[in-house]
Amino acid sequence: VRITSERIDLVKRHPLTISRGTSAGSTNVVVSVEHEGVVGIGEMAPSEVTEDSAASAESSVAEWVSVLEPLHPTDTQRIESLLGPVGRTGSAIRAALDMACFDWLGKRADLPVWRILGLDPTRIVPTSLTIGINPTEVIRERVPEILTRTKARVLKVKLGQPAGIEADQAMFTVVQESARSVDVAEPAWRVDANCGWTLADAKTMIPWLADRGVTYVEQPLAEGDDDSLLSLFRSSELPIYADESIHSASDVANLADRLHGVNLKLMKCGGITGALRIINTARAHGLSVMIGCMGESSLAISAGAQIGSLCDHIDLDSHLNLLNDPFVGATYTDGRVLPNDLAGLGVRWAPAESTNQNEVA
Amino acid sequence: VRITSERIDLVKRHPLTISRGTSAGSTNVVVSVEHEGVVGIGEMAPSEVTEDSAASAESSVAEWVSVLEPLHPTDTQRIESLLGPVGRTGSAIRAALDMACFDWLGKRADLPVWRILGLDPTRIVPTSLTIGINPTEVIRERVPEILTRTKARVLKVKLGQPAGIEADQAMFTVVQESARSVDVAEPAWRVDANCGWTLADAKTMIPWLADRGVTYVEQPLAEGDDDSLLSLFRSSELPIYADESIHSASDVANLADRLHGVNLKLMKCGGITGALRIINTARAHGLSVMIGCMGESSLAISAGAQIGSLCDHIDLDSHLNLLNDPFVGATYTDGRVLPNDLAGLGVRWAPAESTNQNEVA
Repeated sequence: VRITSERIDLVKRHPLTISRGTSAGSTNVVVSVEHEGVVGIGEMAPSEVTEDSAASAESSVAEWVSVLEPLHPTDTQRIESLLGPVGRTGSAIRAALDMACFDWLGKRADLPVWRILGLDPTRIVPTSLTIGINPTEVIRERVPEILTRTKARVLKVKLGQPAGIEADQAMFTVVQESARSVDVAEPAWRVDANCGWTLADAKTMIPWLADRGVTYVEQPLAEGDDDSLLSLFRSSELPIYADESIHSASDVANLADRLHGVNLKLMKCGGITGALRIINTARAHGLSVMIGCMGESSLAISAGAQIGSLCDHIDLDSHLNLLNDPFVGATYTDGRVLPNDLAGLGVRWAPAESTNQNEVA
Repeated sequence: VRITSERIDLVKRHPLTISRGTSAGSTNVVVSVEHEGVVGIGEMAPSEVTEDSAASAESSVAEWVSVLEPLHPTDTQRIESLLGPVGRTGSAIRAALDMACFDWLGKRADLPVWRILGLDPTRIVPTSLTIGINPTEVIRERVPEILTRTKARVLKVKLGQPAGIEADQAMFTVVQESARSVDVAEPAWRVDANCGWTLADAKTMIPWLADRGVTYVEQPLAEGDDDSLLSLFRSSELPIYADESIHSASDVANLADRLHGVNLKLMKCGGITGALRIINTARAHGLSVMIGCMGESSLAISAGAQIGSLCDHIDLDSHLNLLNDPFVGATYTDGRVLPNDLAGLGVRWAPAESTNQNEVA
């Protein structure tokens, strides 16, 4: 295997603010694996959750060049043995490698990855679009813009503001008012607190949000506060999903008695291989599954879309908020992010100088 | 997909007696799926554990013909949706279908299934050979014959006799004496009670077996006696594996707090798809994994061998006890059952009138 990397600089249409901070864009890394004339590609998106950056990713790839050279792109088990298990940090560049290897396999087999995995993309449900933390006046512009542009069928509202739950309630109220001011069907509602609440906050907010039509709450409490999570789980009016608390299938096994569902992300679990482990473990415990994303272009999003039909909920929207997506892959159709019928991940570089391919007609 | 079935009558070299009864052979069913000129094959082996028989298998296939006709052989998710989840009964014919679809995929992609799954067959450990329940005089002939013929590196001794644990101890003692009378390296030792012990039996037998070099004990207690299993687990000197208690990944999740390992069989879990779910769930819980078999020919054994490298222990030996294996597939090399490099499951029909292909030189 010949492995190379290159940077891509992504610029967001709207900066995204969550409980921990704001991102206006990112420098991601595209990994290419080449073998027998076939090239597979994957993407690393940086995140404080996995402590990956473009620099750490390039450094990993540089270390891997000689290790991976004697291997075959489908040597997943040997790669894991040589590089070690995917950890809680540095998992995003492992995800890029894993998805590049799946892309190679699909291209070599001349089949889409979803077909190799035996999946049925017609089951894929609509993705949520994310509403970040913003001042009221921004919300009043942003929500109609997103709903009008994307025809979103689900909105995921970021709460857990440092300003506290009164601010969360005020913002959420304006988000719903703004959505209802647009002449589209009202979207389904989810909330993601990104670790921003205390147990008391969560016990106040969850019934309040349930009254307002929210269907589940993601990562209400800090990662690691598992006693509080158990207490919340036992009394919660809404299903509780974990995101930051879930990196691996072992995390699922450890927290299965205090969760209704998990939000897996390729960047957290090291790719499609890790995602399938999480999904299988979650299903064995009767948990629901959603798939989310970091600040990914259409490359990593298309990898996620391959396994979308295994998930109850989809949150693959980061590419829909990019001004300069370098890739064309999964389609956005009727609110759904769908893998195409091309071999591998079905992703090509966008034509140079093209406008964003994710514009919704 | 065009799906057809045919019977194969297998004759055992040595009848196999376990706690529940004796088998001198079986009528298995070969399932073929054909699409775009490529044919994938899989095998059903009957068992009282899954309540499959050749008749029930053929009846299932007859029902599936029209259901599966509009589908693609890699439509695993749609097939599961249409046929329902794999249950505790009737799972063996589902396994035959699943492995036929994997065989089709591999042949279509021109890759062995182990390569599509990213696996490394060089990690596969030696298989155990099974010593059934027999009178002392039979044991004294049988054990040397098996050790000499197969060069087995591991022996799995069936205990749990209706005659009680004194009979088990007497037989086990003769098995070890007989093995030590042969001029080969002493094999590693495992014991399988096939649900044949009470909790008191198990608490007596396990220390006794530990003193005699046994490395783990399989299914000591009846399926469903999970309180006793917890009690045994807490005090056991040897690792406890479950077989009859484990059909699905949900069973793994339910019993993970009272087991050291699980014995998966393709016939119990509905094929490679179900096996991967079990393996992922077991690993998430830190459990060990072994793969076993029913009375399978080289066809189903070769399907198991594809995923052998994911398992800590291997018990794929039924084909080595057949007088008329209709297939040639996985090789038996240095005590290991290894998938070959051919596309799909790597299995072909044996030449007509050939002697058993599994004879060890």
